Amino acid sequence: MDANPILAEAVRGNWVENRHRGAFVIVDADGNLIASGGDVSRPVFPRSAIKSMQALAIFDHHAAEKFHHRSEELALACASHHGEEEHLNNVSHFLERMGLSASDLECGAHMPTNGKARAALRAAGQEPSALHNNCSGKHSGMLSVALAMGIDPKGYVDREHDVQKAVRAAVEGVIGEGLTEDRCGTDGCSIPTWAAPLSAWALGFARMATGKGLSEAHGHGARALFDAATTHPHLVAGTGHLDTLVMEAFEGRLMQKGGAEGVQCGAIRDKGWGYALKCDDGNMAASHAMVAALLLKYAQPDAAQRSVLEQFVRQPTKNVRGMRVGELRAVGF
Amino acid sequence: MDANPILAEAVRGNWVENRHRGAFVIVDADGNLIASGGDVSRPVFPRSAIKSMQALAIFDHHAAEKFHHRSEELALACASHHGEEEHLNNVSHFLERMGLSASDLECGAHMPTNGKARAALRAAGQEPSALHNNCSGKHSGMLSVALAMGIDPKGYVDREHDVQKAVRAAVEGVIGEGLTEDRCGTDGCSIPTWAAPLSAWALGFARMATGKGLSEAHGHGARALFDAATTHPHLVAGTGHLDTLVMEAFEGRLMQKGGAEGVQCGAIRDKGWGYALKCDDGNMAASHAMVAALLLKYAQPDAAQRSVLEQFVRQPTKNVRGMRVGELRAVGF
Repeated sequence: MDANPILAEAVRGNWVENRHRGAFVIVDADGNLIASGGDVSRPVFPRSAIKSMQALAIFDHHAAEKFHHRSEELALACASHHGEEEHLNNVSHFLERMGLSASDLECGAHMPTNGKARAALRAAGQEPSALHNNCSGKHSGMLSVALAMGIDPKGYVDREHDVQKAVRAAVEGVIGEGLTEDRCGTDGCSIPTWAAPLSAWALGFARMATGKGLSEAHGHGARALFDAATTHPHLVAGTGHLDTLVMEAFEGRLMQKGGAEGVQCGAIRDKGWGYALKCDDGNMAASHAMVAALLLKYAQPDAAQRSVLEQFVRQPTKNVRGMRVGELRAVGF
Repeated sequence: MDANPILAEAVRGNWVENRHRGAFVIVDADGNLIASGGDVSRPVFPRSAIKSMQALAIFDHHAAEKFHHRSEELALACASHHGEEEHLNNVSHFLERMGLSASDLECGAHMPTNGKARAALRAAGQEPSALHNNCSGKHSGMLSVALAMGIDPKGYVDREHDVQKAVRAAVEGVIGEGLTEDRCGTDGCSIPTWAAPLSAWALGFARMATGKGLSEAHGHGARALFDAATTHPHLVAGTGHLDTLVMEAFEGRLMQKGGAEGVQCGAIRDKGWGYALKCDDGNMAASHAMVAALLLKYAQPDAAQRSVLEQFVRQPTKNVRGMRVGELRAVGF
């Protein structure tokens, strides 16, 4: 297998300590290549980076019409939230409105991603619930699909459940190619994740940004989801996170979402471009440096946007005493 | 730069999600190559993997004679300990015997590596001290060098302090080549770390295992340090850690030590071979899979040793609900 290019490196003192390889691609909604690096035909698991694409099942099955999903709820359906108060309150409300509760979520429980929220939970002597799971908004959206379909939500995370079939069909519709069982795994939150070429994920985001090549339901849904995510960037991730800070800075021009193991996807909405990026070794911080460099070069940032991106393009490394000892930085863009 | 080979991969379901490249080398004390993969001439920061080599300064300056370092203390000088009770007690005792205390340590404080020790500290509402720092044993050894040299220990972590000059000279003596300021960084615990070719680190460990090519003080010291580490594997790391489990299983035949950012070094003592390995992207779990595969192939493990190594060669990945969803495994050995 040919090696992808080095797209980030960690420097300590005056010497490179680590190297992170990866691939990236930017396309328009017709599939025209805007830029790329590395092998963009290699299928990769998109993980949480395509939650907005998975959420299109909500529109295929008229769940948004039935339950009148609020914009906050659509943002949470696209989110890997950090378990802060605003996230928990909105997910609880989302479930309540459907007559459901945290006990209907099948994502499992983990400690909040946000440090302060974790410390507060520990200080209160409480265990995390499924609400704290970063995927609880996405799962609430999937539960709304089950209810709108009039089927039993139980087991909705399983690959053979009609909800996951609906999610798979929505994603296949957007990227324009089939997902296959020989490239399938289980995600952290127990739903299936399907590998597809990096270029297919980028194309899907370009189509979602423009509506080109999409069904009417998907075109409408994609706009509603991207509008929701970019209107509520804090709900999509959390305090201090790249996705939140970058979407805040771009004020609607940019949909940006990370996924586990070094995946970054999104759309430069005003250009109608979709992008997808994967760090080969799964390092998240390196993928942040990479996607920030990509946006710095291709998203025409203004000074304020540039300043946010630059925080991630070069990330200082500190040692135990807080001394700056090096940096993780994007290279090759 | 040519790409190193893929030496570990993470599989999710039936598809490879992440790839980890790296280089490894095994040599004897005359520098004869036993096995290698990738670019072994590329200088790498050894980080904590060479604490035993740094500890030779103790013998150069007769600190071991002056303070009669116990075997436990020599093991801790080579250690990245997990902050468990046995570690803290021994480091405290080490410092006390020299008339010093935790306030003389300049490594900084961090939470214990061991999960139970962390939870206990939190439950007690206490902040970690420098004793909990995984490097506190190494720093105690360095303080003993300062006292044996009759100099002020203050600032002993600085590159220009006589203690660090002594440590640098000891390492240069063992690997047989100079360390240079243009390949230098600051380690997590604030002392300098110097990059040298992977092959040089392997050669140093082969020399330490055999005494060949070493001064009398280094030959004696290396034997004492390796004996101490392999007699007290729990002091060198902690409960459940690869270094501890593997050294326990090999009952003195093997010196094994990891360093931050995916470095693994050691010696197959009965063969007189040294080895060094670096995962290019710094992933520790991947470096564990790699070094376990290396030892499985080259260290002639018996059934019990094989069983310990195999736990690390293939490491199951679980999701939030504890389902097994994939594995991280070594490849290409």
